[in-house]
Amino acid sequence: MKDAIKIGLAGAGTVGGGVIKILAKEIGFFRNKLQLPLELTKIATLDPQRLKDFPTGKAEILSDGLEIASAPDIDIVIELIGGTTAAKEIVLKAIENEKHVITANKKLIAEHGPEIFAAADKKNVSVYFEAAVGGGMPTIKTARESLIGNNTMSFYGIINGTCNYILTKMTEEGSNFNETLKNAQKLGYAEADPTLDIDGGDTGHKIAIMASLLFDGFVDYNKMQIEGIRNITCDDIKFAKELGYKIKLLGIAKKRAHDKSIDIRVNPVMLPENHILANVRDVFNAALFTGDAVGDIMLYGKGAGELPTASAVISDIVDVARNIISDNSKRIPMRTYSRENEITLKTSKEITSRFYLRFSVKDKPGVIGIIATTLGNHNVSISSIDQSERHDDDFVPIIFTTDEANEQDIKNAVAEIEKNSFIKATTQFIRIEDN
Amino acid sequence: MKDAIKIGLAGAGTVGGGVIKILAKEIGFFRNKLQLPLELTKIATLDPQRLKDFPTGKAEILSDGLEIASAPDIDIVIELIGGTTAAKEIVLKAIENEKHVITANKKLIAEHGPEIFAAADKKNVSVYFEAAVGGGMPTIKTARESLIGNNTMSFYGIINGTCNYILTKMTEEGSNFNETLKNAQKLGYAEADPTLDIDGGDTGHKIAIMASLLFDGFVDYNKMQIEGIRNITCDDIKFAKELGYKIKLLGIAKKRAHDKSIDIRVNPVMLPENHILANVRDVFNAALFTGDAVGDIMLYGKGAGELPTASAVISDIVDVARNIISDNSKRIPMRTYSRENEITLKTSKEITSRFYLRFSVKDKPGVIGIIATTLGNHNVSISSIDQSERHDDDFVPIIFTTDEANEQDIKNAVAEIEKNSFIKATTQFIRIEDN
Repeated sequence: MKDAIKIGLAGAGTVGGGVIKILAKEIGFFRNKLQLPLELTKIATLDPQRLKDFPTGKAEILSDGLEIASAPDIDIVIELIGGTTAAKEIVLKAIENEKHVITANKKLIAEHGPEIFAAADKKNVSVYFEAAVGGGMPTIKTARESLIGNNTMSFYGIINGTCNYILTKMTEEGSNFNETLKNAQKLGYAEADPTLDIDGGDTGHKIAIMASLLFDGFVDYNKMQIEGIRNITCDDIKFAKELGYKIKLLGIAKKRAHDKSIDIRVNPVMLPENHILANVRDVFNAALFTGDAVGDIMLYGKGAGELPTASAVISDIVDVARNIISDNSKRIPMRTYSRENEITLKTSKEITSRFYLRFSVKDKPGVIGIIATTLGNHNVSISSIDQSERHDDDFVPIIFTTDEANEQDIKNAVAEIEKNSFIKATTQFIRIEDN
Repeated sequence: MKDAIKIGLAGAGTVGGGVIKILAKEIGFFRNKLQLPLELTKIATLDPQRLKDFPTGKAEILSDGLEIASAPDIDIVIELIGGTTAAKEIVLKAIENEKHVITANKKLIAEHGPEIFAAADKKNVSVYFEAAVGGGMPTIKTARESLIGNNTMSFYGIINGTCNYILTKMTEEGSNFNETLKNAQKLGYAEADPTLDIDGGDTGHKIAIMASLLFDGFVDYNKMQIEGIRNITCDDIKFAKELGYKIKLLGIAKKRAHDKSIDIRVNPVMLPENHILANVRDVFNAALFTGDAVGDIMLYGKGAGELPTASAVISDIVDVARNIISDNSKRIPMRTYSRENEITLKTSKEITSRFYLRFSVKDKPGVIGIIATTLGNHNVSISSIDQSERHDDDFVPIIFTTDEANEQDIKNAVAEIEKNSFIKATTQFIRIEDN
């Protein structure tokens, strides 16, 4: 047996701190029960003071993650710095030096995954990134291992805790977006700069990774349709409720049989209130996979936080260490993807869905007729209309839901309707996912 | 690269048929994308006629699973025969011949796991059994791999689809147990002999395996408290609903910090109706893990059926094949357990819970007083009492719910109360799990 499997940790922030704590606590279990002699050998951090209360044992504290990537005695490099500059440099340097790599960096994997995987392939080392999607839930492992015998039909993910928290509070307390965001920031559930969460970018990175793995090709994050929750109003949530729906921000990847392009995007959507994802509340995450063999499988859990995320990093460490210890310096072949094999995304012209449309109009005779006729002219068939007795200033909201319609047709119809002078504000449209 | 990884399949029933189908469909993907040259080389079945419409390719069809376990060219033996006689012989013979083993046999693993693991350890081969618990859900993988950095606090599983189907129908349609069971049998959701499902044995095998893995010791199935759903009445379901609970059959394993013994059992329990497990309906399964790092993680999916279960077997095949192909004939060290390290189960004297008690009494003055006083004498504190205006023949049901109480105290109190002549039928008691 190898005397020690030496781990270098680059980045000792929230998740890094959790990794240090769990390793210290479980090191005896790993050594005695699993025969894995793990050792936290080096830690790189810009803030060594922060580590003084952590059980870092005999680990050498450095300031530069690149030193860890180049240290001859390190077997596994854990990148928890974040971002795509230094992190990418460390990961590629570690691979070049034939070290296995573990990262929690969704942005890095989403944007530079193919380059990293290709480098790892050449050097025969593993890249693990369970913590990149869904925190402590085994989201990546399920895609790469458990569902390997399935052709994926769809993946729906509530994979941003901040957005789910805000939408839950807006739904249950009737508060508006800005007020709820401020509270979430006070409670530490939203960042000071919440852009990446609120506007869907974080969900976008995660769905790009999941779709790339599940559909065995590269999904270019920059080409995806990404829409956040900033424009969701209390009214929308109220009308959704009246119609029997809840609004959730979903990362969606779905393929119809025989289609060459895949519908991959981030959108707030309306889900029937008895849909299993509709009842995932607060900061919880959930990932619903549909495979041709397994049917529906859902994972549910905390998608963020010090220890849940560290739990995922630890499972990666043990996976890699199991591989090292079984006298095998070689990479275990894993489901991966390359840039050459880019997945074609469905465009608005190809995407169909049911839609919720909220028009803000000045009430006068004929308005509903004009809207309905214009929708019809664009091949949009109406499923329901609701104009309640309800007046905010001069505005009357009129709610249409449609049958399955082409997204581009909806956009064209709305653009034409908005030319009418009775339209008083931008029209809201939200997809309804009820099939 | 090895030319072929040769698979021998013993048993071609429902799940075996699914494995044959998925392997035939995905063989090109495994070879080209994962570099795993899988080959289904031999199939043993007592009913070769059944295979005539299956894509068995060039596989040799045999009648004796033991031949597969001894065949020199086979790398992986899949045991899907069931039972513990021939199946055990095949598995041990395969291990003796240094073949990796995959099985879906919960009874075999629950009752003979330690012997099998010890043999595999000696011969340095792997034993995988993802399909033994929770069908297509990655239940075993989550316990053995994803949660490896966690001390488990509890595992709650709805892991028998038949029982969950019956309880769902009784709850939603108000039908009684016998009638619902008969319908389930007609629909193929219950076996002709439903004993193992209905009386909790199947859930018992599964919870014994999960608890053994999660608590790193052997749980003796024969020592567990196992109770099924045969005695659950429409009345209990109705009263549960009035109290805000749903009744589910759970496999439970939970440990309090610093306790040496663990509470591991199978019981129908009342769950608060907003509990995440309370809303798992029909034949669906769910597994709720609570770990000290990860918090709550739930898996949800179909726990049985041809393709969902075969999906789990396929993931095992790919895991084992990945290990073989990375030039490594050795076993990857996995979380396992031995008979020497047996877990002490909590007894009735040590288990505490809240309880629902339904007494069937002849209504006369003083009855409630006698019951309440007797409960008090046995240290059982009452949380609620309900005696509705409701008379079935001469019987009046009186419902007590208790605060946290010792199970043995409850049993003693009930035995004493049942000595009174006003008691007209056996008292029902059901645990309430609401913390």
